[in-house]
Formats: sequence, C-alpha cells, structure tokens
Amino acid sequence: MISSHSNPLVKRIKQLRQKKHRLGEGVFFAEGLRVVLTALEQNAPVETLVYAPELLQSEVAWQMIRAQEQKGVKGVAVAAAIFQSLSERDNPTGLGAIIRINRLTLAQLPVTPHAVFVLLDRVSDPGNLGTILRTLDAAGANGLILTGESSDPYHPTAVKASMGTLFTIPVVSLPTMAPVWEWAETHQISTIATSAKASQEYWDAPYRLPALLLLGNEQTGLEQTVLDAAALSVTIPMYGQASSLNLSIATGLLLYELRRLHHQKEFHR
Amino acid sequence: MISSHSNPLVKRIKQLRQKKHRLGEGVFFAEGLRVVLTALEQNAPVETLVYAPELLQSEVAWQMIRAQEQKGVKGVAVAAAIFQSLSERDNPTGLGAIIRINRLTLAQLPVTPHAVFVLLDRVSDPGNLGTILRTLDAAGANGLILTGESSDPYHPTAVKASMGTLFTIPVVSLPTMAPVWEWAETHQISTIATSAKASQEYWDAPYRLPALLLLGNEQTGLEQTVLDAAALSVTIPMYGQASSLNLSIATGLLLYELRRLHHQKEFHR
Repeated sequence: MISSHSNPLVKRIKQLRQKKHRLGEGVFFAEGLRVVLTALEQNAPVETLVYAPELLQSEVAWQMIRAQEQKGVKGVAVAAAIFQSLSERDNPTGLGAIIRINRLTLAQLPVTPHAVFVLLDRVSDPGNLGTILRTLDAAGANGLILTGESSDPYHPTAVKASMGTLFTIPVVSLPTMAPVWEWAETHQISTIATSAKASQEYWDAPYRLPALLLLGNEQTGLEQTVLDAAALSVTIPMYGQASSLNLSIATGLLLYELRRLHHQKEFHR
Repeated sequence: MISSHSNPLVKRIKQLRQKKHRLGEGVFFAEGLRVVLTALEQNAPVETLVYAPELLQSEVAWQMIRAQEQKGVKGVAVAAAIFQSLSERDNPTGLGAIIRINRLTLAQLPVTPHAVFVLLDRVSDPGNLGTILRTLDAAGANGLILTGESSDPYHPTAVKASMGTLFTIPVVSLPTMAPVWEWAETHQISTIATSAKASQEYWDAPYRLPALLLLGNEQTGLEQTVLDAAALSVTIPMYGQASSLNLSIATGLLLYELRRLHHQKEFHR
C-alpha cells in the first residue's frame, strides 16, 4: 500500500490537475464511486484503479475492483491520507481511476434523424462544462462539440459536475469552428445560434431536427460571424434586472425545448 | 490606507466567510463591481465600502464611492495585497462592501396575481443557490424561500454566482416549512412540488398562478410529506443514463415553464 507523498504515482496524479499534463500524457484522474463505476459500465479505457482500503466502504466497488484486476486492469491501494491529498472532495469515498482520454472526431458523432448536439465556443468555466454534460445526458442529447480555447472536460471540477456523464456523452474538441459548418451541411443538421441579440424567442422558433445548438463564451457570447452563419438565431427572454442566465441554465432550456418538439409530436399523433 | 493583515477590519472581513460570523454580526462581505453597484442601486444597507486604489480602474466605481462617502457611507482604502487576501477571485477588481443582512418575513413577499415563488428545502450547494437567484431574476420571479438547514445566500460563492441578483430578489429563511403552507393557503398560492417520483410531466401540467415551486435537497429531494401536501407534483422527464439534473437547471426549466403560460396567454388573446 502506497503511503508516501513522494511516490511517483501520487506525484503523477497530482500533476494531472493541470491541463498541460493531461494533454501531454493523454490521461486524466477521475474520482468518486459513481464516476468510476459509470466509466467502467461505459467501457472507458481505465488504465489504473486507485483505492484507499481504509476509506472504501462500498461492497459493489470492492467486487468491481476484484473483477477488473482479474481482467488485467492495474489496481493500486493507497493510504487514506494519500487518497485525501489526491481528492478534491471533503469526504472522499476512496475510489479513483486514471483513465485514457478518448479523442473523437466529428465523423464519429452519431447523426440520427432526431439527433441534438451542443457546441460551446470558448466556454471558460469547468463547472458549467460538467453541468452541461449532465444536462445533455438527461435531455437525451447526442454529443458535445467544444471549439476554440475552451475549458477542458477532464478538469477535476468538470469531471465532478458531470456526475459520470463524461462517459455517456461523446465529446469532440476542435481548435476552430470551421469544420463544424461543413459537417452540419453534409448531414443536413440545422444550426441554431443562441444570443441575447436575437429577436426570435426560443419558445416560438421553427426548429427542425437533427439540430446543433451553438452557445458562446460566458462573458462575450457567440461571435457575430457565427450568428450570421447559423440557420436560426434565438434568444431566451429576460424579465429581470440582471442581464443574463448562467450558460448551463440557457443550455438546459434549449435542450428541453428541442426535446419538447419530439414529445409533442408523439403526443399529437 | 490599510496595509496590515492584522488590521481589525481585515480580520473581520475574513471572519465573515464563516456563516456563524455572518449570522452573529448580521452582515456579509460582497465583492466585485457588478455586485456592489447593484447593491447600491437596489438601496441595500451598505455599512462600509472597501476599495483598493491600486486595483480599482472603473471611473463609474470611483464616482459612486465619492457620492456614497458624501452621503455618509464609510469608505476604507486598502492595499492591493490586502484586497487580494480578502477576495475569492483570481483578478479582483478592487471593490467590495460590508452589507447588512436584510431579514424578510413571508408577509413581506409581494403576492400579485401572476407571482411565482421558489422554495428550496435544505439546499446544500451555495453555487446552486446563487445560480438559482440569478435564474429567478431572469425569469421575472418574485421571491425565494429557504427552509431547513440550508446553504446561506450570503456565502461568498452564492453571492458571486448570484451576479448581484441577491439584491433584486427577496429571500426569506425559515427553520421549517410549516408556516409556508398557511401563507400559501391564505394567499391562494398554488403549490407545485417537483420530484423524480411524480408521474405528471412538467410540460403538460395544469398550472395556475400565483404559484410556489417546491424543490428539495440536491441528494435526497423533497420529503414525502411535502409531495403529499402539494397541490400538484411534477417531474422533468429524463432520457439519459444519469438519473438527475442539477438543481439549478431543474429550477430554470420550471420557472420558464410558468413564464411560458403567461407568454402564451398574451400571445393568444
């Protein structure tokens, strides 16, 4: 059992808090019972399971560790104090995993007739990013595209907020938005920009599926060129004294609006 | 200009990070240009303005400080390093304020024919709480009620996430939910519980206004007695592999659903 803070594995996991190390190695560290169990259920490429026997109470987790070790996945036991130093949580459950980052391309996203995708351009808050992944999963959406200098879905805060949905929703990261337009045209995906400047309110808009929702940076929103290029621009009306909604709330309203279309068609047929 | 970390005001502001000190003194510390300017616009009871001349660039902020000092509000200049030690932000703008907590009662909430209120029972995450305040403001809702052992809207994380709406939305804190039922009955406010266990989907429910949305703790939801007592129970359908939405997303969907009723009435009349 590892009990030294200077152990190479312990040092490595701490380094993975930084984006440059995650990118360099192509792995990230995920912690928490639900997150690690979801990763395994979804066949995510787990490299090493890290667990603290003094902390880990869950019988399900212990069975899973034994089964994975039998399948050849490396398992490493660490002392409680070590696990606490690796954890972002106040009361860690004692289970974590080093997982390889699965890089996807646009061509790998599943475009079905009723598919809904979300593109976030230059999103800066990893908590928002994780919450948006969780919302995509709840709304039955099909994938997330991140463009530009974006927060990283493998940031510990994003992983935590995603509640395991990082492994259920395909994520594509791209340096620019250019290839997205071509992909949308090829697959006849309707592009819907969201902007405080649009005049069309989101609850009366003529949506069609498959669709790609486009949302911009928390402070600056989408660039004008994106608003001009999108097939439809919609706004969420504001009735208060603040000027905007949190990005994850806006994404949730639009995702469920698209889902409602689907529901109403079933309802009225 | 204060430049010592052991200055009593500096120590006091740091203590205000803890709930017991905020409750004991009946004040909290708010930082950031937008938050402090909104507090003053909304006539919040500002006790002391705290600013760092080396950091504060905004001409609007300087004019406001001079105007407030002329009106007798105390202004205190601190060194940049001191302000940074008080701040929760990476790049603080150099403006903060100690503000008295304005305790409201249910009787002070404005019950109009189309009013919408939100009750959160035992909400635990201050970031959720702040985001929900921001969403109430955007959706034009009329007040927030917190019951039970709840996170505190004056927690630094909640203040930051609320983006100044802490001063535009009335907040009532109560140890139990008991007086809420009486208040709702007296004012003929329709009570709407939200629960994963409800069978009525939120987009087909027979709402009426004024309304009170009831939402429960992030992990455990509302208690069964609350679900039984509410006039209506609704659920947000889930289509994914995760089992729930973030509490602030659920609140946003329901608030905009109630707002949509209003909108559709205007649209069809």
